[in-house]
Amino acid sequence: MTETEAKKAPEGPQDRLAQVVDLLQRHKLIEDLTHRQEGGHQALVESLVHRQNLAELQRKLNELHPADVARILEALPFEERLTIWQLVKAERDGDILLEVSDAVRETLIADMDDHELLAAAKEMNADELADLAPELPRDVVHELMESLDGQQRERVRSALSYDSDQVGALMNFGMVTIREDVSLEVVLRYLRRLKELPGHTDKLFVVDYDGVLKGVLPIKRLLVNDPEKQVSDVMASDPVTFHPDEDAYEAAQAFERYDLVSSPVVDKNGKLIGRLTIDEIVDLIREESESEVLNMAGLREEEDIFASVWRSLRNRWAWLAINLVTAFAASRVIGLFGDAIERLVALAALMPIVAGIGGNSGNQTITMIVRAMALDQLGSGNTLRLLRKELGVSLINGLIWGGVIGVVAWLLYDSWKLGAVMVAAMTLNLLLAAFMGVLIPMTLAKLGKDPAMGASVMITAVTDSGGFLIFLGLATFFLMG
Amino acid sequence: MTETEAKKAPEGPQDRLAQVVDLLQRHKLIEDLTHRQEGGHQALVESLVHRQNLAELQRKLNELHPADVARILEALPFEERLTIWQLVKAERDGDILLEVSDAVRETLIADMDDHELLAAAKEMNADELADLAPELPRDVVHELMESLDGQQRERVRSALSYDSDQVGALMNFGMVTIREDVSLEVVLRYLRRLKELPGHTDKLFVVDYDGVLKGVLPIKRLLVNDPEKQVSDVMASDPVTFHPDEDAYEAAQAFERYDLVSSPVVDKNGKLIGRLTIDEIVDLIREESESEVLNMAGLREEEDIFASVWRSLRNRWAWLAINLVTAFAASRVIGLFGDAIERLVALAALMPIVAGIGGNSGNQTITMIVRAMALDQLGSGNTLRLLRKELGVSLINGLIWGGVIGVVAWLLYDSWKLGAVMVAAMTLNLLLAAFMGVLIPMTLAKLGKDPAMGASVMITAVTDSGGFLIFLGLATFFLMG
Repeated sequence: MTETEAKKAPEGPQDRLAQVVDLLQRHKLIEDLTHRQEGGHQALVESLVHRQNLAELQRKLNELHPADVARILEALPFEERLTIWQLVKAERDGDILLEVSDAVRETLIADMDDHELLAAAKEMNADELADLAPELPRDVVHELMESLDGQQRERVRSALSYDSDQVGALMNFGMVTIREDVSLEVVLRYLRRLKELPGHTDKLFVVDYDGVLKGVLPIKRLLVNDPEKQVSDVMASDPVTFHPDEDAYEAAQAFERYDLVSSPVVDKNGKLIGRLTIDEIVDLIREESESEVLNMAGLREEEDIFASVWRSLRNRWAWLAINLVTAFAASRVIGLFGDAIERLVALAALMPIVAGIGGNSGNQTITMIVRAMALDQLGSGNTLRLLRKELGVSLINGLIWGGVIGVVAWLLYDSWKLGAVMVAAMTLNLLLAAFMGVLIPMTLAKLGKDPAMGASVMITAVTDSGGFLIFLGLATFFLMG
Repeated sequence: MTETEAKKAPEGPQDRLAQVVDLLQRHKLIEDLTHRQEGGHQALVESLVHRQNLAELQRKLNELHPADVARILEALPFEERLTIWQLVKAERDGDILLEVSDAVRETLIADMDDHELLAAAKEMNADELADLAPELPRDVVHELMESLDGQQRERVRSALSYDSDQVGALMNFGMVTIREDVSLEVVLRYLRRLKELPGHTDKLFVVDYDGVLKGVLPIKRLLVNDPEKQVSDVMASDPVTFHPDEDAYEAAQAFERYDLVSSPVVDKNGKLIGRLTIDEIVDLIREESESEVLNMAGLREEEDIFASVWRSLRNRWAWLAINLVTAFAASRVIGLFGDAIERLVALAALMPIVAGIGGNSGNQTITMIVRAMALDQLGSGNTLRLLRKELGVSLINGLIWGGVIGVVAWLLYDSWKLGAVMVAAMTLNLLLAAFMGVLIPMTLAKLGKDPAMGASVMITAVTDSGGFLIFLGLATFFLMG
């Protein structure tokens, strides 16, 4: 970020982060911390140096933005992570817990006792509490809820009642509401009395006496218009609004399309109940694309890169086990053609080419489709057209690349028939890959699943078994007269 | 979005989008448009109905937000896309061109003549022009630049001089600057004189007489503080700032961490030269994760799902060709063991299991690493630790799943030796997959490439050739006495 050459620019949070990272690296504090239990005289001396370093580190850490502390914690292995976590001032625990990734948060919470957890959670808003609650011990949650006032408790309960992919789970309650029949001057005076505005307040929400949303007053308009004007003359009466049970990903797309910073959430009667802000949306977009990548590779969830071997195993087993079954099925297909392979061992060498290229091409198709579905570009109307296109691409790829490898096979094994079988098998398997590459994600979506879920394992299963069957079948038919 | 049940909430842009999509589907306008060239008497009658529909569609389209028109254009096949594009009012062309994806933008620009392009571009800001310029015909760009005033031309040139992954290419010039020695009252009056504030103005930039940034005045503070106060007393003097040659992805991470809406861009002397806004950052985050997904699958770029077969082929050929070479290499490895396979045809059936599971597991590892690198969680200090963990996971997976398949192979082919070779080969290939899964993205990153580039093809190449070599090698050694 702003490096040392930029002396004249004010020192921002990034500079402070760079300093701490530098400190961690320069003093090899990370390594010191790891080896601190190793005994001996030398260790004592080192530990004195070490304690000084720790004090400096602690001071620097407390100057950092909570998100930066979170980032440092995420990048540290388990043991060092907890050491740094203990250095952080207790009153900042809550802010930092809200910033770290789920996997890392779990390790930090496990390290805190109930008392510390309660203290950290007491500073939080209703929406923040709802984010954290599912991961807290049950008795801590109970005690927390008891300590809240009625409105807050209701808000936490309501936020918890939505699925994590619904707008209701993302909304917060930091709203400034005004009436439409007052002048901008009155609004300006009202804001001054508030002393502080909630984060990401780019518009004020105009409601009637029943709390029904009448429109929004963008701060921009408040600032440039004559203070004598009425709110109702200046406000926008057709704002983008959301319902709490709406799909959060669709809300994210609306934020992107309309370049929103904040937006009101209303219930079925149009009553204002909360708001969405861009920071939550950005996190959601990030998570969405992450889960797409993870799901395609057959990983169940995001994995803390320093997670224990055991946790990683659990995360990866499901799809590996499925892959085992599909690989075994492909193996049985080959088993059916044992005789043919015994008579012409070249088949064994050539068959993985057919399967492999089919898998790769299928993965390309599936990636395209999953992306188009995520962007909502696929309706039932254009599926057929898309399928035609993918089949066209596969046909040409099959004839051309199959042709290349067919000629090579011909020359290598001195059999033009074998070459021709290779071309035909490649082309057919690529067509199969295209067909299933379109069908698999669409079927998953129809079943209400994530279209990317294990897509890579599934397409490979089809192109492997299919490739072996097509190639060995054609070879048996045409070569084994 | 806000569905019909929400009668009381004001009608937002989403509702209007839903109406147009509905219109397109209900009247099957899309299909009408496709078949309009088919002749005959019936076509004439239909064309009358059709013309009415078109008029209604045009009216609705012109009420839509430009981003929504863009979305509709993206979801339509080529021919229908151009029909809708011609229905859109000329003065909105520019806004819509800026919203569509690169692939679709190209098809739209190809459909416009120089005159239309010039008219569309004339409405744009310097940063918008710079976004569009690389895709416009050279003489249109030349004429455009001639028509700009000195400052604007300088801004376009400067924006064009940065790579698309640098902050300079993303920044815009819609800034409101103020002095630090005035009162908030003066600032408020100044804003009122501006009549309109640039989008995403959540802070004003405080500069001295040389244009050097002294701090920022968040609008929130401007609103809640006493108007008598001086800017210098209220402003934040340590804002997050960026340099134009900084990595845009790092800037995006800073926006996420610090929940920014806008942020000043300064040169090496601290002089304010532009600003970054969250809307550009959201687009960048989306693009970044997209290119990660595409690169892993070996696709060169985002593909308009209705792109021509020819364009799709070009997009996918590079990695398919590489895959062909690697598949051929794997085939040659098998060729080396022709004798062994002839003697024990079970080897041909079992070898794809070893290769396939290795490929799947390697893909999981590589996905994890690419993600951790994207989030900046991988330093040189923790590579070894990570490698140890991945190798541990692979060892356990190999022994357990290898054990399962080994027992099956034993029972199936009645040879405990074959089973044992299977376990050993699975374990070794999974270890190879873990090792290369860590090594490949790290090496790519060291070479300054995208760590996800063709990662899937590369890891599969290694686990295929490696798997065949390990399995057939062990089998020859232990089974062919």
